[in-house]
Amino acid sequence: MSAPLARVAIVGVSGFSGVELARLVASDARLELVAAYSDAFHDKRLGELVRASGAARELVVRPLRDVEHGADEADIVFLATPAEASVKLAPALLARNKRVVDLSGAFRLEDASAYPHWYAFEHPATKLLAEARYGLPEVPQAAGAAPSARDAKLVANPGCYATAAILALAPLAHAGVIELDGIFVDGKSGVTGAGKKVEERLLFTEVDENLSAYRVGNHQHTPEIEQALARVAGSKVSLVFVPHLLPVRRGLVTTAFARLASNVDPRGVDELFHAFYRGQREVEVAPVERVTIARVALSTHAVVGVRVDPRTRSVVAIAALDNLLKGAASQALQNALAMIGEG
Amino acid sequence: MSAPLARVAIVGVSGFSGVELARLVASDARLELVAAYSDAFHDKRLGELVRASGAARELVVRPLRDVEHGADEADIVFLATPAEASVKLAPALLARNKRVVDLSGAFRLEDASAYPHWYAFEHPATKLLAEARYGLPEVPQAAGAAPSARDAKLVANPGCYATAAILALAPLAHAGVIELDGIFVDGKSGVTGAGKKVEERLLFTEVDENLSAYRVGNHQHTPEIEQALARVAGSKVSLVFVPHLLPVRRGLVTTAFARLASNVDPRGVDELFHAFYRGQREVEVAPVERVTIARVALSTHAVVGVRVDPRTRSVVAIAALDNLLKGAASQALQNALAMIGEG
Amino acid sequence: MSAPLARVAIVGVSGFSGVELARLVASDARLELVAAYSDAFHDKRLGELVRASGAARELVVRPLRDVEHGADEADIVFLATPAEASVKLAPALLARNKRVVDLSGAFRLEDASAYPHWYAFEHPATKLLAEARYGLPEVPQAAGAAPSARDAKLVANPGCYATAAILALAPLAHAGVIELDGIFVDGKSGVTGAGKKVEERLLFTEVDENLSAYRVGNHQHTPEIEQALARVAGSKVSLVFVPHLLPVRRGLVTTAFARLASNVDPRGVDELFHAFYRGQREVEVAPVERVTIARVALSTHAVVGVRVDPRTRSVVAIAALDNLLKGAASQALQNALAMIGEG
Amino acid sequence: MSAPLARVAIVGVSGFSGVELARLVASDARLELVAAYSDAFHDKRLGELVRASGAARELVVRPLRDVEHGADEADIVFLATPAEASVKLAPALLARNKRVVDLSGAFRLEDASAYPHWYAFEHPATKLLAEARYGLPEVPQAAGAAPSARDAKLVANPGCYATAAILALAPLAHAGVIELDGIFVDGKSGVTGAGKKVEERLLFTEVDENLSAYRVGNHQHTPEIEQALARVAGSKVSLVFVPHLLPVRRGLVTTAFARLASNVDPRGVDELFHAFYRGQREVEVAPVERVTIARVALSTHAVVGVRVDPRTRSVVAIAALDNLLKGAASQALQNALAMIGEG
Repeated sequence: MSAPLARVAIVGVSGFSGVELARLVASDARLELVAAYSDAFHDKRLGELVRASGAARELVVRPLRDVEHGADEADIVFLATPAEASVKLAPALLARNKRVVDLSGAFRLEDASAYPHWYAFEHPATKLLAEARYGLPEVPQAAGAAPSARDAKLVANPGCYATAAILALAPLAHAGVIELDGIFVDGKSGVTGAGKKVEERLLFTEVDENLSAYRVGNHQHTPEIEQALARVAGSKVSLVFVPHLLPVRRGLVTTAFARLASNVDPRGVDELFHAFYRGQREVEVAPVERVTIARVALSTHAVVGVRVDPRTRSVVAIAALDNLLKGAASQALQNALAMIGEG
Repeated sequence: MSAPLARVAIVGVSGFSGVELARLVASDARLELVAAYSDAFHDKRLGELVRASGAARELVVRPLRDVEHGADEADIVFLATPAEASVKLAPALLARNKRVVDLSGAFRLEDASAYPHWYAFEHPATKLLAEARYGLPEVPQAAGAAPSARDAKLVANPGCYATAAILALAPLAHAGVIELDGIFVDGKSGVTGAGKKVEERLLFTEVDENLSAYRVGNHQHTPEIEQALARVAGSKVSLVFVPHLLPVRRGLVTTAFARLASNVDPRGVDELFHAFYRGQREVEVAPVERVTIARVALSTHAVVGVRVDPRTRSVVAIAALDNLLKGAASQALQNALAMIGEG
Repeated sequence: MSAPLARVAIVGVSGFSGVELARLVASDARLELVAAYSDAFHDKRLGELVRASGAARELVVRPLRDVEHGADEADIVFLATPAEASVKLAPALLARNKRVVDLSGAFRLEDASAYPHWYAFEHPATKLLAEARYGLPEVPQAAGAAPSARDAKLVANPGCYATAAILALAPLAHAGVIELDGIFVDGKSGVTGAGKKVEERLLFTEVDENLSAYRVGNHQHTPEIEQALARVAGSKVSLVFVPHLLPVRRGLVTTAFARLASNVDPRGVDELFHAFYRGQREVEVAPVERVTIARVALSTHAVVGVRVDPRTRSVVAIAALDNLLKGAASQALQNALAMIGEG
Repeated sequence: MSAPLARVAIVGVSGFSGVELARLVASDARLELVAAYSDAFHDKRLGELVRASGAARELVVRPLRDVEHGADEADIVFLATPAEASVKLAPALLARNKRVVDLSGAFRLEDASAYPHWYAFEHPATKLLAEARYGLPEVPQAAGAAPSARDAKLVANPGCYATAAILALAPLAHAGVIELDGIFVDGKSGVTGAGKKVEERLLFTEVDENLSAYRVGNHQHTPEIEQALARVAGSKVSLVFVPHLLPVRRGLVTTAFARLASNVDPRGVDELFHAFYRGQREVEVAPVERVTIARVALSTHAVVGVRVDPRTRSVVAIAALDNLLKGAASQALQNALAMIGEG
């Protein structure tokens, strides 16, 4: 076994995504996990929180206040923290020459003025928004003018719903075959998508045998999807996103609806998807009826499918992924590996 | 307790909807259940199949071949049979002066030429399509030029998804505030919506912790929704419907998306719903986040909500109902009671 | 419709059992619901909390502090409150000549010295323990020397697990066919059995796709089952009870194991159950494989079954019931009706 | 990466256990998967059935009729077939000098006369029953006088329930601290335990929100548990086993009840478990409340816990494992590795 290519730290190993990330990193020979931080679990051994193998099991979790001064041994720091925490941690780490992969929404939007509305805070580090790379590896167009994956100092890891919706709509936006307004995205996510919170709405008795919409029209992934698709299409995109809570643990599906642009031949659309994702290991193209949670749960890959309805000149594009893996942790790992040329 | 107002028979008491219907009818003092038919359960007492109370418990289920000659004692016959069976049973019963409430899709579409495409059979009784009343009590406009609820000899009871989608979109179509093309309906249904079939896709191991789309763009409720909304709007409607299978037993949600018509003021839309359904006992208007399966499971009422997004000039209208009750059995009961002036 | 036979009040209409009880009482013509109390919901109309019909919908919920002075209009008061609250409310209400049906464990054990160990409090009203009737209608022997159901001033409504375990074992204990030590009861309950609490262990992500034992060997229903069976058998009973949390909303199953007493003929045991419960409306005897949650969910009846294993000279007795109905609310209703001669 | 130590074949890669086994074998560098058989999937590439990595993905599945003559390239053959098939395949393979790990019950019982009662067939190869090793690696005593793990030609891989029950009771039987009659085992298993069958009782609508007992007192794992514990205890054991079907996909729990032998000090029992399993990688000892399905799902290890109740002089021993891994596939892998000295 050869020596690892980079030393990494993870901040926030107590949440669902942080735990998955620690597990993935611990079993990847190209990375060495040198530090893990969490206020909820500090002083515990990582092996108590995570089914990790090898040396990582013995790592002692440290409190968050140690991040700024303690991450010296790491080359790359993953932030699996809320956006409110990431906006403070990232600048401090970058100032000390760490590279950062942030799993929150803190650096996903280039327009600083969007933060108060969608995230309910004033962004304190607006200059970084232009430098951050939106890290969706299979849709590099979504990163706009940001530094390349290899050169990026700061990567904004996409949101779980946003990853699915962009993967489903990017081939259509890129080929110019759909109208860019009147796009609708219906999301359905397992409960881990909401994070590890002790709240009444997340009780078994509330979720089981139920389905409910939430944040209708004002979910924070909306501008993220619009921004990515606008970069892909080269033109403004306007859409509505409605997420729903599913009685499942993990996995999500987005069902996207759009109108075919005039003069477009409905017959070629399927092939667009195959061409767009050819050679990609982590995105599979399949018939829409096979784009299911079961196909992607516990897996690092997403699956997408498209169906054109010539009768109504409409397109339905469906994507599924594991919200904790391709929707968070494994995509963050893809981004970190790309930083060191292993993408 | 006064004497019942009508004698009724139920054909098909073995399916999920038939069982619910038998239970509802048996506990409604205005109706007397005089016969029940099922090939799967004939010669059993109804009380073995259904938590019925009273005399209905002792009714002996008869085979389907007895329907035509045996239903003489009934005034109204419910057909809880597949469309392929209903198209044959209904004409025979009508010829013998029975009134019929059919729970299948056999008489829902006025255009006979639509049957081969959406139902995969040639309709053998096309003349009845014009006489059948589409029985959605809270949206009488959806019945078009059919006989009134009180006069109808044949009522086509709406589909479960269709009931939800029409309830959600009718106030908008009626008021003329949405574009009538580019409408998209995303449906999510519990497993009982698929009926009682022993098929691999309905196994616990296939459904649990999963979500999958099916019949994308070609579900047979599509033309039913379009027809009803076109009658309500007075103009052609074109939409795409994509149903998904949920890991729950019963209940469904439809999330409908449309663009606001130009010049429409987004502010008045919410009030449209309250006005449209004022005084209706079986349709409740609520904020979209409360339009959940939990709110309607085991209940005979539907709940609908609307959210306008002024930013994108779009409308999201959500409806929830119990697919076996307001989506089938309790709506059939509403229709039968309307026939005898008790609606 | 004739006039109601008793006026009743419910204290604690916010919990799962209280809600079910309010619904049942509101639809029973023999009782008039004159007051409802809850600190969580006071000043709301009961119709907002409960799918009640009729006048009860308009009842305004009052705070608990009003119980003592406000329940004057009621003949019978249901306490759907924690044991710690019931031990204080019951004496005050009895002192004012109300009759009380308490759904908690506050008055189930005759031995006051058992409370510190099993309930973690010193009992403040030990004199009432001898006067309280243990109200399991189908097993009157379990009430020991208490006043009759009709004469009782205070009824201790049995626990949900205890009801199931006693129903399963009483015919065996009564007939003297099992050894009275080495009895083991394995319980499996849906999540509503734990009450409406916002706790981490009750989150969807903790319960879904999981099963866990809890309170192994020290659950408070243990002495309740032992006391009831000892009264039925006329001899001391010693058992271990291990409950498990199931990923279902409602319903529970207890599987009880015992050794056949020597000289007992294994062949007659099945008939014991039929004889013991003959004529009982709320207890059904069925083959063990049909003693399922699905058979009793949302129903007021319990189902019990027994299987003798001659090879090992053992007995397995299984019972299922809806923990919120026969395990709480509908049994409380049975007890109240028995008080007024309508049992 | 060094060369593999053995070439293996898997017969029956279409069932749940076969799929898991193929995945595990494909990712273990010590074994080379050279052939896979299944009538349901023959001519498909293994990569279509299993998330396998590496060369195994390209293996073409062959029909079962090819097993006898086609497995020549393999050193060890796994039989993931029903007992009725294994009793025929194993002798043929052994005759050709293959070593066999059989996942069915075909060779688990030494007493040939037990097969008609528990398995409903006359055993056609009774001589092999004495040669087969019962392969529960952490409880070598359960193998009785069979050849050692390293020398065995034929290993009978234990049943899923049996593995759990034996792991929970072996430390107690070994130390002689429990009575060997009046032992009761209550099992609860996810649906994959029943195998991949399209049967009504396995439909989502039958299993969801339900719990039911099945094969009460006559489940085929009963004699297997008794035989193993008798070998461990050195004395006859008699027990009743009652399995229940849980609304979860995978994972099972067995809760075992026994009486303490007289004169045994209840205080030392906990330590027995730690001592018995010290140094075992695949069995973890934990407090009973942490012996949950969530702790073992998707994992190759079992977890066991014990609680003594001094009041009743009883013991409760609980075990949990993933029925497809430690209850089948990963235990089979342990057994195969032991054959080549890698256990």
